[in-house]
Amino acid sequence: MAQAVQATIGDSEFDRDTAVTPRAPGVYDAELSAGWTIIHAVNGGYLLALLGRALGDALPHPDPFTVSAHYLTASQPGPAVIRTELVRTGRTLSTGQASLFQYAEDGTEVERIRVLASYGDLDALPEDVRTTAEPPAIPPMQHCLGPSDGPAAKIPGSSAITERLNIKLDPATVGWAVGAPSGKGEMRGWLGLADGRDADPFSLLLAVDAMPPTAFELGLKGWTPTVELTTHIRCRPAPGPLRVAITTRNLAGGFLEEDAEVWDSADRLVAQSRQLAKAPRS
Amino acid sequence: MAQAVQATIGDSEFDRDTAVTPRAPGVYDAELSAGWTIIHAVNGGYLLALLGRALGDALPHPDPFTVSAHYLTASQPGPAVIRTELVRTGRTLSTGQASLFQYAEDGTEVERIRVLASYGDLDALPEDVRTTAEPPAIPPMQHCLGPSDGPAAKIPGSSAITERLNIKLDPATVGWAVGAPSGKGEMRGWLGLADGRDADPFSLLLAVDAMPPTAFELGLKGWTPTVELTTHIRCRPAPGPLRVAITTRNLAGGFLEEDAEVWDSADRLVAQSRQLAKAPRS
Repeated sequence: MAQAVQATIGDSEFDRDTAVTPRAPGVYDAELSAGWTIIHAVNGGYLLALLGRALGDALPHPDPFTVSAHYLTASQPGPAVIRTELVRTGRTLSTGQASLFQYAEDGTEVERIRVLASYGDLDALPEDVRTTAEPPAIPPMQHCLGPSDGPAAKIPGSSAITERLNIKLDPATVGWAVGAPSGKGEMRGWLGLADGRDADPFSLLLAVDAMPPTAFELGLKGWTPTVELTTHIRCRPAPGPLRVAITTRNLAGGFLEEDAEVWDSADRLVAQSRQLAKAPRS
Repeated sequence: MAQAVQATIGDSEFDRDTAVTPRAPGVYDAELSAGWTIIHAVNGGYLLALLGRALGDALPHPDPFTVSAHYLTASQPGPAVIRTELVRTGRTLSTGQASLFQYAEDGTEVERIRVLASYGDLDALPEDVRTTAEPPAIPPMQHCLGPSDGPAAKIPGSSAITERLNIKLDPATVGWAVGAPSGKGEMRGWLGLADGRDADPFSLLLAVDAMPPTAFELGLKGWTPTVELTTHIRCRPAPGPLRVAITTRNLAGGFLEEDAEVWDSADRLVAQSRQLAKAPRS
């Protein structure tokens, strides 16, 4: 869908759908949007961004450096409350905890996700870079495949989130969409928000869990529920599309890990994440 | 040091030094042993094993599957208390939280580490393995180097922990010990407990943080304080020595990640971990 005006950080659908409203000190009301659902669930990265914004308000430092989330019960679109706790304040880092709750029919709170996170100030970090990591080999965007390029990006179940994302997958990792998964635990491609909003640290929390799961390329279908997801945000992303590469090396005992790395348009490794997930049953 | 009798799981120095004593429901007294210090601090993996044992007692499931730890303040040898909370009980997984506190001079509790963890039953997992991961290329143990092989494994500052570990490093990753670091962010070798006790899920929590830091091979000296460390335990380790490989790809902005993988004698990937740490200053 063509956009008359490109959305900006702070004025976009992602910003509105991850807004949190202070109810009391450290307590925030939120509304989980149905626009970020996939298959039968609210996307875990979107939920993480909501928690991330609440902690960004509650803690003395603004930016998530490392966020560890344990997913407890499946979230539903609708009202939620986020309760935060300041655990420790330091000079360069502060640590906090946050839980997202929704409401049972009798009004009692049901915990969905619990998060431990350490925040800092990305703009205060020194410029030194001694990385040996190299960006993933992804073909130019015009050679990658999205939902408008035929069957390549069809996803089983709800796909509301795909309307809000601009995903262009490396053709080498879309075999699953045409019934010919590669058998390799790899998924990679270009990622942006559909309205053109650039990435910031909070949307990186979405980005690490926004691609189709590697399980699809391993020939497994259905839901891959996240048990735990930890994300490191390593620098503020430059404007422009992101490249995301996800890898699974160890599918065993009914569980698998998914390692994600996110690169910005300036060829910097801006986020690294790993999750433990339950393998789909078939 | 030759051992007359090989120590066993449940009857070893590691077991005694990670023992936790219930004080009240979910609350445990512990004594941090000076035997697991390195440079100026109590080793973070040893502390994780203590927290892991407390949660293993407090939660309905016995084995750590994924443990996320945020390190708040530096621990000292001496008394500590661990307070646990049952967050959620499920059929196959339960989730808990634990904090380790020590005491200030005025007796107030100071929080050292906070952990979120999901536990299950490793022995109940199906046997399916579809891993593509392969064990790290480490020379046979007799070709690797330990403290008794000359300067190869000298560590600055306290090295009490090295007396309790049997570490034999791949010669390709010991350049740091003779002033010639490779410049690569890699450290790998064989790891066991010095008294011959075999590995179990709790000692794997030690194993992921027991090797010399990759920063040494990057030419950096001194302490590499862990901000956050998340470990996945993927199966119960077979008897025999472990192989541990640690990799740093992204040293930037004063922080680095350390990815560890631990393999058992049956060539199974038994643990994966990633930590975010502050880079040493020089």
